Amino acid sequence: MNQVKVQLKESYTILIGDDLLDHAGEHIRGLTSSPRIAIVTDDIVAELYLQRLENSLRKNGFDSICSYVFENGEHSKTLETAGKIYDFLAKHNITRSDLVIALGGGVVGDVTGFAASTFLRGLRYVQIPTTLLAQVDSSVGGKTAVDLSSGKNLVGTFWQPSLVLCDISLLSTLGSDIFADGAAEVIKYGAIRDKELFEMIASSDYAEHLEEIIHRCICIKRDIVQMDEFDTGERMLLNFGHTLAHAIENHSNYSIPHGKAVAVGMVMITKASTKAGITPVGATEALERACNRFGLPTTVDFDLNQLVEICLNDKKRDNMHINVILLNQIGDAHICKMQIDDFRNFICEGCK
Amino acid sequence: MNQVKVQLKESYTILIGDDLLDHAGEHIRGLTSSPRIAIVTDDIVAELYLQRLENSLRKNGFDSICSYVFENGEHSKTLETAGKIYDFLAKHNITRSDLVIALGGGVVGDVTGFAASTFLRGLRYVQIPTTLLAQVDSSVGGKTAVDLSSGKNLVGTFWQPSLVLCDISLLSTLGSDIFADGAAEVIKYGAIRDKELFEMIASSDYAEHLEEIIHRCICIKRDIVQMDEFDTGERMLLNFGHTLAHAIENHSNYSIPHGKAVAVGMVMITKASTKAGITPVGATEALERACNRFGLPTTVDFDLNQLVEICLNDKKRDNMHINVILLNQIGDAHICKMQIDDFRNFICEGCK
Repeated sequence: MNQVKVQLKESYTILIGDDLLDHAGEHIRGLTSSPRIAIVTDDIVAELYLQRLENSLRKNGFDSICSYVFENGEHSKTLETAGKIYDFLAKHNITRSDLVIALGGGVVGDVTGFAASTFLRGLRYVQIPTTLLAQVDSSVGGKTAVDLSSGKNLVGTFWQPSLVLCDISLLSTLGSDIFADGAAEVIKYGAIRDKELFEMIASSDYAEHLEEIIHRCICIKRDIVQMDEFDTGERMLLNFGHTLAHAIENHSNYSIPHGKAVAVGMVMITKASTKAGITPVGATEALERACNRFGLPTTVDFDLNQLVEICLNDKKRDNMHINVILLNQIGDAHICKMQIDDFRNFICEGCK
Repeated sequence: MNQVKVQLKESYTILIGDDLLDHAGEHIRGLTSSPRIAIVTDDIVAELYLQRLENSLRKNGFDSICSYVFENGEHSKTLETAGKIYDFLAKHNITRSDLVIALGGGVVGDVTGFAASTFLRGLRYVQIPTTLLAQVDSSVGGKTAVDLSSGKNLVGTFWQPSLVLCDISLLSTLGSDIFADGAAEVIKYGAIRDKELFEMIASSDYAEHLEEIIHRCICIKRDIVQMDEFDTGERMLLNFGHTLAHAIENHSNYSIPHGKAVAVGMVMITKASTKAGITPVGATEALERACNRFGLPTTVDFDLNQLVEICLNDKKRDNMHINVILLNQIGDAHICKMQIDDFRNFICEGCK
């Protein structure tokens, strides 16, 4: 088992291992003296793991456990779901002494984190991420979110969990598409910060090193987030491939999942960056090989001008510039602030 | 004009004066370089003051002003209204470089603050409170909130404004009932911390000292909040009279407004505390005289046992104890942690 300590305003621990779910109660017990605990999860995860989590909690003195299960999928990441979680917490008299557990993938973590951070102006919560993407990405950083009809993740808070349990064994039930979604983020972490990690995930025996891979990703994100808790600088590095990815997701009406879009986004931006003489030749091909291993696409048949305009309409951006993450080489990246017209050229010329 | 500096994680200024609305643009100009600003208000306040605020902003270089007006009243303090504010902010492409202004009373401040604190994970906002209650109470402390059907203020955040403009002249349009609502809180501040303030608000010429009265209340709250930003200790002092007040509001189905309920709550708890030998004789009568000046009630015809049970069902409380604020004398108070059964006796015997 590995352990990562995250030190922000309030610090917390991330445990990474292969037998954490059935011992969750022991790890959580020390966080509260209350016997009451609330679990939020989705229907798919509930069927697989809810009973085991409840058993472990009950064995460790939590004798008042309530669970709220919502329908799986991005369409549930709304203010309405948060509202239903609030009603559930109120109905079960959850107070600030009690804990909330988010058991599931990114959607469960994001919406449960949002509800926990705002119910009674903030409850402590524990994350048990059940997908590779959630383990390497959502469990560090404290970003909670719900979507609006006008855009994804437009509403949310910064709210740190009190504990994160990354149980590697839970990943065995993931379909290959869902696993690939997370692999794209692992490739990203390697590309921006850790050449060894990049080679590990790109190699044929990656499955044997899953614990180390996840541990490295979490440490990279931890280091970056500790420098920039509120996402005003350094943390933008984590957006490598993401500006284009968000535009691709948007343009496909979210029929292309996040991981696939990130794969395409990383390859596109690196192609452009190589053409501009910033990233050395070979990096694009290395990214393509790594993505191919997981069946991730590296091109998309969309109009470049349209994609660029979607990037430029991003609601979180100021009007004059756009920040783009470019590789110096595999394992090293920097933030490049571009004028809007320069970005248009950079992509439209660079990705032709 | 008075100025109070609030120093929390991020510090901000509260201006108190009688000509601030028409100069709002000048005061706000320095906070952002963006020409875009979003105002949220209710229909009553919009009719009285929105045009003046917009004029002042326009004169100071804000040439892209958008306004969202919702129906006045506590029934608007919901997640639905927050959702509509989010949609409004998204539609007008408000980004983290832009400011939001909450122009109105407590409901406007609470729900706008909540929306601002969660849209794009946090926008900066300016409060222009238009009621006495909002000026002395909501403008310091950073508590934002919306109600759920199961209880008031159950959802919210801690989020500090970037600037607060308390324009005393806006209070002249308040009905006497709404003014009395705020007076009850002023009496509270005097009772727990400042005998001179108590005498000022209880005297017949209080209207001539309104600026000083508001200034003193804000300083008291500022001092207490600076000691306890996240409401885990000292800040409970501000709940003097409020435990019973919340029960009275609840029991009346919120037909009794907050200020009236606080008046009754302060008198009841002090009566009980005097009977228990904690508060000296005379304090209850002093509170009654002060409340009477504003037409505030000091008794209520509800069953004591029922009120006590509602107090004990408060969702924000732990199960074993209740914290009660008691006066040592007018101008000085302390927090008393009581066993539940003791509290039952204390009220039922003390207020007979």
